[in-house]
Amino acid sequence: MKIHLFLTQLFFVSVLCSSQLLAQAVKDSKPNFIIIFTDDQGYGDLGTFGHPTLKTPHIDQMAVEGQKWTSFYVAANVCTPSRSAILTGRLPVRTGMYSNNRRVLFPDSDGGLPAYENTIATLLKKEGYATAAIGKWHLGHLPQYLPTSHGFDSYFGIPYSNDMDRINDITTKEAFGNSKIEYFNVPLMRNEQIIEQPADQTTITRRYAEEAVKFIEANKEQPFFLYLAHNLPHVPLFASDDFLGTSERGLYGDVIEEIDWSVGEVLQALKQHGLDDNTYVVFTSDNGPWLVYNEQGGSSGSLFGGKGTSYEGGVRVPTVIWGPGNVKPGVVFKMGSTLDLLPTFTSLAGAKVPQDRIYDGFDLSPVFRGEKAIPRDEMFYYHGDRLFAVRKGEFKAYFYSNNPAGYPEKLVKLEKPTLFNLGHDPSERFDLADLQPEVVADLVDIAQKHASGMVIGKSQLEKRITKVE
Amino acid sequence: MKIHLFLTQLFFVSVLCSSQLLAQAVKDSKPNFIIIFTDDQGYGDLGTFGHPTLKTPHIDQMAVEGQKWTSFYVAANVCTPSRSAILTGRLPVRTGMYSNNRRVLFPDSDGGLPAYENTIATLLKKEGYATAAIGKWHLGHLPQYLPTSHGFDSYFGIPYSNDMDRINDITTKEAFGNSKIEYFNVPLMRNEQIIEQPADQTTITRRYAEEAVKFIEANKEQPFFLYLAHNLPHVPLFASDDFLGTSERGLYGDVIEEIDWSVGEVLQALKQHGLDDNTYVVFTSDNGPWLVYNEQGGSSGSLFGGKGTSYEGGVRVPTVIWGPGNVKPGVVFKMGSTLDLLPTFTSLAGAKVPQDRIYDGFDLSPVFRGEKAIPRDEMFYYHGDRLFAVRKGEFKAYFYSNNPAGYPEKLVKLEKPTLFNLGHDPSERFDLADLQPEVVADLVDIAQKHASGMVIGKSQLEKRITKVE
Repeated sequence: MKIHLFLTQLFFVSVLCSSQLLAQAVKDSKPNFIIIFTDDQGYGDLGTFGHPTLKTPHIDQMAVEGQKWTSFYVAANVCTPSRSAILTGRLPVRTGMYSNNRRVLFPDSDGGLPAYENTIATLLKKEGYATAAIGKWHLGHLPQYLPTSHGFDSYFGIPYSNDMDRINDITTKEAFGNSKIEYFNVPLMRNEQIIEQPADQTTITRRYAEEAVKFIEANKEQPFFLYLAHNLPHVPLFASDDFLGTSERGLYGDVIEEIDWSVGEVLQALKQHGLDDNTYVVFTSDNGPWLVYNEQGGSSGSLFGGKGTSYEGGVRVPTVIWGPGNVKPGVVFKMGSTLDLLPTFTSLAGAKVPQDRIYDGFDLSPVFRGEKAIPRDEMFYYHGDRLFAVRKGEFKAYFYSNNPAGYPEKLVKLEKPTLFNLGHDPSERFDLADLQPEVVADLVDIAQKHASGMVIGKSQLEKRITKVE
Repeated sequence: MKIHLFLTQLFFVSVLCSSQLLAQAVKDSKPNFIIIFTDDQGYGDLGTFGHPTLKTPHIDQMAVEGQKWTSFYVAANVCTPSRSAILTGRLPVRTGMYSNNRRVLFPDSDGGLPAYENTIATLLKKEGYATAAIGKWHLGHLPQYLPTSHGFDSYFGIPYSNDMDRINDITTKEAFGNSKIEYFNVPLMRNEQIIEQPADQTTITRRYAEEAVKFIEANKEQPFFLYLAHNLPHVPLFASDDFLGTSERGLYGDVIEEIDWSVGEVLQALKQHGLDDNTYVVFTSDNGPWLVYNEQGGSSGSLFGGKGTSYEGGVRVPTVIWGPGNVKPGVVFKMGSTLDLLPTFTSLAGAKVPQDRIYDGFDLSPVFRGEKAIPRDEMFYYHGDRLFAVRKGEFKAYFYSNNPAGYPEKLVKLEKPTLFNLGHDPSERFDLADLQPEVVADLVDIAQKHASGMVIGKSQLEKRITKVE
C-alpha cells in the first residue's frame, strides 16, 4: 500500500515537473506571429465593432480573449501603400510605394517593393523564423518583388487585387453584378510559379485557411511568422458553397462569415498544437470599405468616409490582437498602427530594429501586456504624397478635403485646416477650428516638422512594363 | 482508516445533495426581473455596439455573459409612448399614450397612463412579486398616474424628463451649453411626495443605483421586479464628481460611463446575494439619440436617423439580456421589442397574460434559452398615430418620410412606399421598391390588415391642466 502510494506520488510529481519544464521551454522560445489581413473590410464590419447583421463569432471571441483596438490605423487608404507599410514599418512616401496617379500596382506595373526594404519577414528570418506569405501580395508581381524575394520562405496566393485582369468584353455592371471567376483572369501562384489561372476565387478563402493550417502544423517545433492576407472582401465577392447564400448580410456577409470561419480554423490549429500561449495573432484590414460598391462594399460603422479617403472611415480598421497569457484582455482605446507591428514583433522576438533607416512605428508590446504606456500619440495621414491630415491625442487637423466616398477623388487643398476631436466626436461631425485655434496651430506645427524631415522616395507605382507590339 | 474514508465520502455526498437541493429550490422559485432603461442612448453608444471611445466594460461583460440583441426595438421614437409600451406590452395607439402634437407629457399635462392598463408590475404583483420603480417615469405625474398607482410598491425618481421645468430666464444655449442643476426645477419624488426640488441631477445616477441595490438587498428572499429607468443621458447632462471630466467622449461619455458603473453595481449586488442565477436583467434604451444636441447627443452607430424618427436609428436600441444559467450567451439577430417583455416576464414567472385585451408582444423566453423559435417576425413603426413603416423579416417598407435628425419634424406621406433590406443594408441606403415590388405589396398588405384591426385610443398626452389665474 505504502509503495503504491509512493509510486503514485512520484508519478504526479514527475508529470507536474515535466509540464512545468515544458511550459518554461515554450516561454523561453521565441513567440510566433500571425497577421490576418483582410481587404477593404470596414471599421463596422465585425460583430464586436457593432455590425447589426454580420455573424463573426470567432473574431468576436478572439476580441473577448484578447484586445479589441478601437483606434488602430493603416498608413494609407488604398491597398498597395497600406500593404507596404504593414510589412516594412515605414510610411509609403519613404519607400516609394505610393503614387498620386496610379494609386496601386496593376498587372502592367513594372515596379514593386524595393530590394532595399526590410519586411517583418526579412528581420524575423535572421532570428531563425520560418516565414510564409499566403494570400494577396500587391507589392509587385515580378519575381524580384515577390514574397520569396522579401524574406518569406514560401508564397501561395493571388499576387494583386482580385478584380484585376478583367477580360475585355465584360462590362463593369456585369462583372460586379453577377461575378464569375472567369471574368477575372487573375493568377494563383505558388512561390514564383503560376499554378492556376483564373484562380478559382470561390474556394480561395478556404484554400488560404488550409495553407495556413498546414504551415502552422509544419512549423510547430520552431518559431514562425505567417502573413495571411485574404483577397476578400474586395470586390468581386466570392464565397464557397458552404457559405454562399447563408448570411443575413447578403453576399458580402457570406464572404465575411467565411473569413470569420477561417480565423477560427487558424486559432484552432494553434490550440491543437499547444501553440496558443506562444503565438500573437493580429487581425486587421488594409483600408476602409469600398463604399461605391453599395451593398457589395462594407461599412465604416459610425466613422466618416471610406476607402480612398483619409477620413477615419478610410484608414481606421477593425483590429483584434490575441495571445492568451501574453496579451492582456480588454478594449484598447490607445492609438496603434500597422506601422507598429514591425517594431513590436522584433521587440517580442528579442531582436533589434536596424538603425540604418527611419522607421515610422512604435513598439506596442507594453500595451499588449496591459501596461500604461502610450507608445503612439501621433498619426500622419497621407493621400499619395500629400499630408492630408495629422492627429495628436484626440485632435485631428485636416489640410485637404476629399469626396467621402473616395471615388471619384475630389482632392481639395483647404484654405485653412479643419479640426475634429475624435474622442468626443468620433464621427467627425463638428469642426472646432474656430473654437480651438491654438490646437490647430499645434497640429500645423507638428505637420510642418514632420514634412520638413521627410525624404520622399521615388514612386514605384508609376512604372509600367513597355509593351512590345 | 476505513471509517475515516466512509465519513469523508458521506460528507461529500451530503454536500452534493444539499447543493443540488438548493439549486433545485432556487430553480423552483419565481425568477426576479430587472429592467435597466436609459434615456436617449443611441444604438451605437456602447462598446459592444461599436462605439470607438465610450468605455462600457460592465455592460460589455454583461453582453459576453448574456445575449446581445442587435435588432431590438422600442415601440415609439420618443419618451412617453416608448415608456408606456415597455410597461404595458401594448402599442401606444391602443393605450392613448401617443399624440401627433404634444408628443410626450409635460409638467402641465393632465393625462397619464389610464388606470385600465396593466403594467408588468401590476401583473407580477398578483404573483407575489415585490415591485419598485426607480428613476424616470413620464407616464403621468399626478397621483393617479404615478408608479404607486400602477402596481409598484414604491417609487423614487424624477417623474418626467430632466430638461423640463426650466426656469424662465435661461436661454436654451445657456441651459444646455453650461447646464446647472438649478436651471431645471424638476422634482425628485419618493412615492407620491416631492422630496427635493430641483433634483440634484449631478448625483442622480448614483442615487438611483444605490436605491436599486437597497431594493435588491431588501427583497433577496422573495421574487421581485425592479424597473430602473435612468433620466440620463437625456440632456441636460450631469455626472457625479467621480465621473465628471473623466471620459474620452466628453460629458456625454462621463454620463454613459457612470451608468455603466451603476449597471456593475446592480449585477454585483445580485451576485453578492446569490441571486444572479435566478434573475433576468434587461438593459436597453427608450429611443434613439437626440442628434440635434450634437456632441451632447448620442450616436446611432451605423443606423440611419435618430430620436423623433422611426428610421432604424430612432427606434432600434442597444439591448443586452443577462441571466447566468438561464439566458444562453450569444448574439441574437432575431427581432425583439420592449413590447415583448410583459409576455416574456409573465411567462417566466409562470403567470398568464390576461385575455381581456389585445397585447402586442411575444414571449421571447425560448430565445433566452437559446431555442430556435422566432417569436417576432413583424414590427410596426408608429409616429404618433401614423403607421410610419412596417417590417417583416429583413424587409422594411416606409409609408412616410421625416427629417432624419427628428427635429424639426418634417413628416411627409410618401406617394409610394420605399423598401429596404435591413439584413443586407442595415444603414438603409438602398431603396429596393422598384426592384422588388412584390415585397412592397406584401408589406402594404400587412400594414392594411394591421390598421384595419386597430382601435385607436383617445390621446392622453394632449390634456392640460387648466390654469387658475
